[in-house]
Amino acid sequence: HRSKLPDVGTTIFTVIGQLSAQHNAINLSQGAPNFSPDPKLIAGVTKAMLDNHNQYSAMTGLAPLKTLITEKVETLYGARYDAGDEVLITASASEGLYSAISGLVHPGDEVIYFEPSFDSYAPIVRLQGAKPVALKLALPDFTVNWDEVRAAITPRTRMIIINTPHNPSGQIFNAQDLAMLAALTRNTDIVILSDEVYEHIVFDGQRHHGMATHPQLAERSVIVSSFGKTFHVTGWRVGYCLAPAALMDEICKVHQFLMFSADTPMQYAFADYMTDPQTYLSLAAFYQRKRDLMQTLLAGSPFKLLPSAGSFFLLASFDHFSDESDSEMVKRLIIEQGVATIPLSAFYTDGTDNKLIRLSFAKDEATLRAGAQALCQLK
Amino acid sequence: HRSKLPDVGTTIFTVIGQLSAQHNAINLSQGAPNFSPDPKLIAGVTKAMLDNHNQYSAMTGLAPLKTLITEKVETLYGARYDAGDEVLITASASEGLYSAISGLVHPGDEVIYFEPSFDSYAPIVRLQGAKPVALKLALPDFTVNWDEVRAAITPRTRMIIINTPHNPSGQIFNAQDLAMLAALTRNTDIVILSDEVYEHIVFDGQRHHGMATHPQLAERSVIVSSFGKTFHVTGWRVGYCLAPAALMDEICKVHQFLMFSADTPMQYAFADYMTDPQTYLSLAAFYQRKRDLMQTLLAGSPFKLLPSAGSFFLLASFDHFSDESDSEMVKRLIIEQGVATIPLSAFYTDGTDNKLIRLSFAKDEATLRAGAQALCQLK
Ligand SMILES: CSCCC(=O)C(=O)O
Ligand SMILES: CSCCC(=O)C(=O)O
Repeated sequence: HRSKLPDVGTTIFTVIGQLSAQHNAINLSQGAPNFSPDPKLIAGVTKAMLDNHNQYSAMTGLAPLKTLITEKVETLYGARYDAGDEVLITASASEGLYSAISGLVHPGDEVIYFEPSFDSYAPIVRLQGAKPVALKLALPDFTVNWDEVRAAITPRTRMIIINTPHNPSGQIFNAQDLAMLAALTRNTDIVILSDEVYEHIVFDGQRHHGMATHPQLAERSVIVSSFGKTFHVTGWRVGYCLAPAALMDEICKVHQFLMFSADTPMQYAFADYMTDPQTYLSLAAFYQRKRDLMQTLLAGSPFKLLPSAGSFFLLASFDHFSDESDSEMVKRLIIEQGVATIPLSAFYTDGTDNKLIRLSFAKDEATLRAGAQALCQLK
Repeated sequence: HRSKLPDVGTTIFTVIGQLSAQHNAINLSQGAPNFSPDPKLIAGVTKAMLDNHNQYSAMTGLAPLKTLITEKVETLYGARYDAGDEVLITASASEGLYSAISGLVHPGDEVIYFEPSFDSYAPIVRLQGAKPVALKLALPDFTVNWDEVRAAITPRTRMIIINTPHNPSGQIFNAQDLAMLAALTRNTDIVILSDEVYEHIVFDGQRHHGMATHPQLAERSVIVSSFGKTFHVTGWRVGYCLAPAALMDEICKVHQFLMFSADTPMQYAFADYMTDPQTYLSLAAFYQRKRDLMQTLLAGSPFKLLPSAGSFFLLASFDHFSDESDSEMVKRLIIEQGVATIPLSAFYTDGTDNKLIRLSFAKDEATLRAGAQALCQLK
């Protein structure tokens, strides 16, 4: 069969996950917690099922959940969204990214995004018959070079994809980044697709500079977020999109045929749970403790850690002690040390190898300790 | 914004659902039960959540669930699928249809399907830059005219979409249909996409003539099914696809970026529940009682019912007593009689009006009685 994605293999998360399982390795690869969510949240799903909320929800999602999201976003970021037609509950942030790109990007359009990058953006763009334009973030701090963005914008540029906090680097946008992005897109019809699934995981007292914090950017942005990342339930498959109504209309045209509606009992549980803002406001401190622990534990390892300002990822460099490729290093770590990570090259379409591996610290303390010990013992 | 689907409005299920709610009508419109699933199934989800199965499942789905599906399909239909690479658990049958079409249909391809039709097929095809080719089923029994299919096939035909049991007519394929389809596609590279979400709802002792019952068709088919329709949980968003590995590879390339994985606790619950085949084998008799009740109750109504051989839908004709369009009739039934149905014209892209309305009998007995009474009292 002719393939629409001839270059695409199995996603790195599956490849490493399988290798990790084969070797019974400590798994610091996939960005998913290995601990339980709050029992209250589980009780909420059970209650919803017993209350007979088991059939299709409204196509755009459960109304009280959409209202809570608009309230949260207004309180935290200042932007006002209409819960009626500017919020969409999606069946995962992945589905939100897909529906947004599929609804808004036409064949022949160009979409600028930044590498290293989460592995779905470019293939989704290509499935639309559009052209992904990858710009590289500048190492070591993974900043956007805004002059390069200016130079990359053409009359065909339809969308710029932002991801802050950034997977895999853990870096975050600042006010200056938002100002540059706003200046570059002013008077264009470029849409910003902003993947903010780690919005509640920003460290060291910094704030999240998402698109909803900048009125001019909010006007042209689709913001995608996730309940799975925020509430430790990546397998429950519920996320959301925010966008001005004119953009949201086009996203819903895809969503209504692709998915129709997201999981109903889970939506009820989130709506109940989110009434207490501490459920998400406590997340940054929770993960900061894990980051700090990991940094302490790895101080004695051969790796040099890069700083992580958000998300639940850390990058570790081995350039100073090994000539191996990052993929070789990752394989050796799984096979010899029994610890699984992700090679950063998997986040580049051209396979750029910066001798960096990505660790997820969304793990319980015992796993972090065991994983760090395995990394420290690398010969 | 330029729209990729300029002619698409809000799906009929949302439009009628909202009108129905406004008028507090008895809702026989959407194909979703209004009764509870088996408490065992709910307990299964709770158990899975408490057992800490709350994170991403494997990308293609939970292995034991995939194995149970292959066993069911071999027992019931004779076809053997490899649970490793020929089964995909999707986040709803809708997602399965989308991933299959998006993975397999290229820009410029033609896709033959039959109207009246579920409303997602044609827009999904158009989103690929491909051309939906609608053929009309022949009334009154909604049969495929195979000579018309032969005439419609061109070198660009990439896919034929089948739906049996058929939504909205309740008609089913027979062995002759399968033989014709096999003859027409022999020595072509046409893929059959077969929407079989009502596979377990076939009445009067007939068998389901799905693609897995015909080896030559199975070889070129993607079969889509649904746990929601089978287990009375349309809001749980889990379905599956079956396809030969070469086709499945391309479907997975879309699925892995669109959705990554389906809901984990629900997959565990289905895997546990399906170990007893009675859970799905009892479904035909369950819905046949509802169909029979509805036919009995509506015998005294002004409507003439068309026979329903499968699914949980019935069509009712009013041609003999009213000149109204089917949309006018549906509106009047909601507003004056307090009962919601779907106009059949919504299932035709050209709005063909056969003076038929669709009733869903996936409702508890009290609702069926109240709905039938409202229909009987139409002046
Ligand atoms: C859907 S794949 C995995 C999770 C994730 O975001 C990551 O590990 O980068
Ligand atoms: C996803 S919409 C609805 C359910 C259905 O299949 C129908 O009513 O036809």
